[in-house]
Amino acid sequence: MPRTKGDHEARRRDVSEAVWRVLAAHGFGGLTLRAVAAELDATTGLLTHYFPAKRDLVAHALDLLERRTAARPRRPAGKGMSAVRAVLLDVLPLTAEATDSNRIWVSSWDTALADPALSGEYARKYAQSRDKLRDLVAAAQQLGELPAGDPARIAAGAQSFVLGLVVQALFDPSAFPPHHQVELLDDYLATLTSSPSSSGDDVAPS
Amino acid sequence: MPRTKGDHEARRRDVSEAVWRVLAAHGFGGLTLRAVAAELDATTGLLTHYFPAKRDLVAHALDLLERRTAARPRRPAGKGMSAVRAVLLDVLPLTAEATDSNRIWVSSWDTALADPALSGEYARKYAQSRDKLRDLVAAAQQLGELPAGDPARIAAGAQSFVLGLVVQALFDPSAFPPHHQVELLDDYLATLTSSPSSSGDDVAPS
Repeated sequence: MPRTKGDHEARRRDVSEAVWRVLAAHGFGGLTLRAVAAELDATTGLLTHYFPAKRDLVAHALDLLERRTAARPRRPAGKGMSAVRAVLLDVLPLTAEATDSNRIWVSSWDTALADPALSGEYARKYAQSRDKLRDLVAAAQQLGELPAGDPARIAAGAQSFVLGLVVQALFDPSAFPPHHQVELLDDYLATLTSSPSSSGDDVAPS
Repeated sequence: MPRTKGDHEARRRDVSEAVWRVLAAHGFGGLTLRAVAAELDATTGLLTHYFPAKRDLVAHALDLLERRTAARPRRPAGKGMSAVRAVLLDVLPLTAEATDSNRIWVSSWDTALADPALSGEYARKYAQSRDKLRDLVAAAQQLGELPAGDPARIAAGAQSFVLGLVVQALFDPSAFPPHHQVELLDDYLATLTSSPSSSGDDVAPS
């Protein structure tokens, strides 16, 4: 019986699922045709049809990471500080799915830092996140929920905070269970909202 | 002429230097006997004498990272907030050497997360850093330089902040030049020292 287009797409999805599971368990360092074949209970021969070379497999993995991140469920954002908080919570490994995805992101940093083009892409991606966060910070300032101060600097700080929290939680999930991650983020947001130093220096109209 | 013990040690140092340069340029994902041999202008045959298997090379690289980090120059710590600040500044990629070292640390996370034993070691290492930081935070609180509040939570937050700042600075050095990293850290420390929320809720003697 000839294969249909549906069969073909189902098989592609199975391959992508297997790549994702290998990444979640072994990271980019453990991403090989052999590991994906084993996960899929298939031959490496079959996989070379999809990925003629190792770099095709890595490219697919990066693309998958990008697409899954874009498609992940997000909290309703609200406005002001509630939107800032929602966007930052969306980054943290608070569920099994978010933990896999974060673990794969952190693992991809080795690959990305070694490749100038990819490294530049990552830099742009993080800059976009900071810009989005900066706009939310500025909106929270306009609502009077955050003291004045350069919103880009506040955004860069907040992004640093959550990225580092991700790394610590991945290595030490028992020291950073979800409720503690949320507590630490809320501590951080509380210092931002109540800081008189930024409101002190920067309240002059500009 | 027979090789002396000195020759042997000098050669070992050359090998370690070559491993370090390969890591700084290509990360753990690019660490191969062939890459180290090329860096050393030697044959891979010579290197198998030092590293019979790939995992011996990785183990040496991790050991090197550990030893170089332990031996790195540190700022005089002072006391109170000045000690907290010095320890956090010591983490950041503010010099070329610290950038290489941080880049290799971040790259090692992929390897570490894929290996439960190594991952446990990393968790202990980060827990130790947080404990050290917690003691410095508690000392700053006793000097009245920081408001009251759980010093372990403040330390976990501060460690998150610097780790995430490291990652962003590595990907985007032009957006995070050294002076800006220091500025962002100082913003963060300023919100900590001036936060009425932690001093408000927790000032009751306990």
